[in-house]
Amino acid sequence: MLITRQTDPDNLETPFDRLGGLISEAHYVRSHFPVPPLDPASFRLEVTGPGRSPRAFSLDDLRRLPAHTRRVTMECAGNGRVYLSPRASGVQWELGAVGTAQWTGVLLSAVLQEAGVPEEVTEAVLVGLDRGQMHDPVQSPGPIAYARSLPLEKAQEDVLLAYEMNGAPLSPAHGAPLRAIVPGWYGMAAVKWLGRVHLQAGPYPGYFQTVDYARWEEPAGLPAVRVPLAEMQVKSQIARPAPHETLSCGQAVQLLGAAWTGQGEVTRVEVSTDGGGSWADADFLDPPEAGVWRRWQMSWTPPAPGAYTLLSRAYDSAGRSQPREHDPLKGSYEIRHTLPVPVTVRP
Amino acid sequence: MLITRQTDPDNLETPFDRLGGLISEAHYVRSHFPVPPLDPASFRLEVTGPGRSPRAFSLDDLRRLPAHTRRVTMECAGNGRVYLSPRASGVQWELGAVGTAQWTGVLLSAVLQEAGVPEEVTEAVLVGLDRGQMHDPVQSPGPIAYARSLPLEKAQEDVLLAYEMNGAPLSPAHGAPLRAIVPGWYGMAAVKWLGRVHLQAGPYPGYFQTVDYARWEEPAGLPAVRVPLAEMQVKSQIARPAPHETLSCGQAVQLLGAAWTGQGEVTRVEVSTDGGGSWADADFLDPPEAGVWRRWQMSWTPPAPGAYTLLSRAYDSAGRSQPREHDPLKGSYEIRHTLPVPVTVRP
Repeated sequence: MLITRQTDPDNLETPFDRLGGLISEAHYVRSHFPVPPLDPASFRLEVTGPGRSPRAFSLDDLRRLPAHTRRVTMECAGNGRVYLSPRASGVQWELGAVGTAQWTGVLLSAVLQEAGVPEEVTEAVLVGLDRGQMHDPVQSPGPIAYARSLPLEKAQEDVLLAYEMNGAPLSPAHGAPLRAIVPGWYGMAAVKWLGRVHLQAGPYPGYFQTVDYARWEEPAGLPAVRVPLAEMQVKSQIARPAPHETLSCGQAVQLLGAAWTGQGEVTRVEVSTDGGGSWADADFLDPPEAGVWRRWQMSWTPPAPGAYTLLSRAYDSAGRSQPREHDPLKGSYEIRHTLPVPVTVRP
Repeated sequence: MLITRQTDPDNLETPFDRLGGLISEAHYVRSHFPVPPLDPASFRLEVTGPGRSPRAFSLDDLRRLPAHTRRVTMECAGNGRVYLSPRASGVQWELGAVGTAQWTGVLLSAVLQEAGVPEEVTEAVLVGLDRGQMHDPVQSPGPIAYARSLPLEKAQEDVLLAYEMNGAPLSPAHGAPLRAIVPGWYGMAAVKWLGRVHLQAGPYPGYFQTVDYARWEEPAGLPAVRVPLAEMQVKSQIARPAPHETLSCGQAVQLLGAAWTGQGEVTRVEVSTDGGGSWADADFLDPPEAGVWRRWQMSWTPPAPGAYTLLSRAYDSAGRSQPREHDPLKGSYEIRHTLPVPVTVRP
């Protein structure tokens, strides 16, 4: 049920045209390094930082804290990369590096409260127990661990340290025994095999903050600067028909898709069946739920044989929508322009 | 008199085996983009920043401020890159991307005093008027200007905005009509064709601070972070004999070289003629002068025919010396391990 994009480390994509329930039947897998061998019995989550002794939490310690369960839609920041031209390096995702799951764990804020947060702290660096050598686009100085930093404010807001996924213990591929879930952020923030939370004052310019998983920003009149990727942007995708499907003239089909955003909620999805010439509102299948996608549908009866380009466009409560073209400042990430689904209608 | 390493933009190297006076006869040239066409009459240096109107300085305005002349040794951070194995991408410098010149201009501190520095400012971003598209190792979002940031403390200390080099007007290749000279820092800080000084609070994560001209640092227990290159490290080089030169057995030769450091002064140079087995002190030809190299020499009479490896090693007043091996945390920069000069001694 998953498309293999890379093996060892495994990068596996959900076939997006099989979109069914709100919860993804087979959630995509994104790994930077091979799965580290971890023993749940001896596993410890360390909280480290300035002017304090490290605190270590066993899985039992974490389970003693209040459990929270929530649904979260997670999108890989490189989802849809095959739609970039010229081809961009990186995993060649189609539409399926996005999915929704129900996660159970403890709030990072509760762990931080137990451990104590010194006043000067501004960031929480989440460090994975997976590690390896990076070659591209910049050579790392040796094997490095996967790590990602969060502003303290986000870390104390709604970040979950999950030990269960969809009611079952986390699988090794999804970060067992413990991973972060960062609602509203691209998947790179959801550090798997989480071994350490390091509190620090000031930014953490690690490999996956500056070299990789960064975008460009142009401060007024200055040359572009590198900014770590963070919140998901509003986006919709068409699941069915699938790209290059053949439909029958005069026969109604249900266009089905999903739309999500990192801030607020998706308020509207429009669909075009003529390559963007005209647009019509789709109907939502799901009520708005913070951090979770909304499936949508629209009935369409192809009026005549020929080639058609289907597009969808989502709006969110923050007043944002999808652009027509990919923004070059985003490099090979945040691919959220209206992606064309070409279909053929036969007589 | 200069070795061509690249054309358009020109990257030109001094033949280091021609080391003569304290001032380099032909100073190396490092350019990232083609020379921008600039008219000295209409040229303005802009000082911009938060909560203030921009200030513009013509060349006449700058010449009305007190002139300062000083000698500075400048080394490209990638000098010696051909000695890295495996081969590192970037300009393939041998030993001659280092040189000493006498620069005349106005102190950046005087310009900042004229313009005013708001209290919250921590950095001064020096922006060149040259620009172009970067492809490697990371694609820039479009043509970008060359820019480099300095901590305000350094900017207010001894940075020169130079309009003369060795008593003559600055040449276009060296940044006419105005360039920065940052004593003690690698050459990437000495922004040529300087058009703007932007004052800001907080770091400037531009291309040449994070993607390029950055090294790795390993904070305690955390995965490596990217740090902008800054001060030159202590280093010595052998100018003569040149690599692969043939000498005569029993005939005295003068080993000649230079040594420099970004902090304090070079206090000692040792030379080995047996590949590092034994070391002897060299004699300095120059007294210590902050920010300027010291030439050194040592007489050597090859005792027997055969293959020899000459090495030199400098020490500075900050207690630093040169390592035996290149530090992988420095990537393709700060190549300052003891570089071997192989020579053959004939009977």
